[in-house]
Amino acid sequence: MAETELYGGGAVVSLLDCEPDKSVVRYTDCISAYSYIKRAVISGKGRIDNGISSLLLSLLEDSGIRTYFIKKLSDTEQLCLSVKPIPVEVVVRNVIAGSMAERLGMREGIRLSDTVYDLFYRSESLRNPLINDHHAVALGLVTYEELAGIYSTVEKANNVLSGVFARAGIDLVDFKVGFGRLPDGSVILAEGITPDNARLWDSATGERLDKDRFRKDMGRVGDAYRTVYERLRNITE
Amino acid sequence: MAETELYGGGAVVSLLDCEPDKSVVRYTDCISAYSYIKRAVISGKGRIDNGISSLLLSLLEDSGIRTYFIKKLSDTEQLCLSVKPIPVEVVVRNVIAGSMAERLGMREGIRLSDTVYDLFYRSESLRNPLINDHHAVALGLVTYEELAGIYSTVEKANNVLSGVFARAGIDLVDFKVGFGRLPDGSVILAEGITPDNARLWDSATGERLDKDRFRKDMGRVGDAYRTVYERLRNITE
Repeated sequence: MAETELYGGGAVVSLLDCEPDKSVVRYTDCISAYSYIKRAVISGKGRIDNGISSLLLSLLEDSGIRTYFIKKLSDTEQLCLSVKPIPVEVVVRNVIAGSMAERLGMREGIRLSDTVYDLFYRSESLRNPLINDHHAVALGLVTYEELAGIYSTVEKANNVLSGVFARAGIDLVDFKVGFGRLPDGSVILAEGITPDNARLWDSATGERLDKDRFRKDMGRVGDAYRTVYERLRNITE
Repeated sequence: MAETELYGGGAVVSLLDCEPDKSVVRYTDCISAYSYIKRAVISGKGRIDNGISSLLLSLLEDSGIRTYFIKKLSDTEQLCLSVKPIPVEVVVRNVIAGSMAERLGMREGIRLSDTVYDLFYRSESLRNPLINDHHAVALGLVTYEELAGIYSTVEKANNVLSGVFARAGIDLVDFKVGFGRLPDGSVILAEGITPDNARLWDSATGERLDKDRFRKDMGRVGDAYRTVYERLRNITE
């Protein structure tokens, strides 16, 4: 099995030799931030991330959203469709936080009246710059039609996920997803959703239950991830 | 008359005391780049910029595009409608150059099959960042409907200007425009088009006839601006 590390989330994908149209995505205990400058190991995180991601991707599939997820294989592994990754990522924002607050000089925590969609170009050498639709097309990464499909997918995913998290007492502040292309050319959601790439704030206390705890040295990173997983299991089981 | 310096182009706008709905825009011999770090005086540039800008804004008005331009008042001055500036600017790109090439790691000079539109937030403290439509709306600068009008205006302006420059033996590589709001709330194009904010390459030789000569210390800046003005006058008189 050839292994490729995925984008920073500590997930590793392996092609199945006997079934090249399927891959194993394995979540690890690694955590990283600021383009891998800051790194650590959080014991048990791979299992939790896989649990959360499998649960949420199933829910998205049930809502009619096409993703690469087939099934949970083990504590830390998922069976997924093999895709050719498209080097763009979409950040969906319900509340101002993170790079949007910095870029625009806005205060974190303000709820947006219109959902904000950011498109980034996954290029480490260019430091994953913000781009717009025209840039993505000029780079030959996607067509305008595919982008329309991508935005429609993330809008629907945002509705589903916001509802699920709300029932778990968590505000979905923002989340980031990637996409991939199947052999027939169709573009599907191809990334798990975990506290690594979603900002999750406790609805009652505002406590951060996501990777910002690691970025900002707030401590109890693993506990926060565990809380998210437990609450999601409680409402979905 | 209260004077306000406009965005970097060496243009100064003064409100007319007796007619507050009109302003005088005066083009100066100043040139600046890299957020005012690099500055110089090019003798006669104000007169040339005003000539080019008056000529092009008239042509846009004749094509049905609403701009703030009323008439040329003198060698260096225009009479314009007073507008409340909207702190966004749109860059329209026909050929890859400048910040787009840098941001995306692309080579300058490639003609784009689809026109690229970039939106920037005019904020010196934030270093005029690239933004997208959602950011502009979240910042309260414009509505989605106003943005649609802005893109439609610059698309039309691009067609008109590309045609005019082509007849003058010049490729319109890209150009940047600003917008302002009239007292009735309507949004109009409110910035002159000059070699300060448009990349203009000689169609035959590829020679640069714009502010890049100043940015890149290529020399003969004033000559290049003069060439543009003369060629435009030859085809329009």
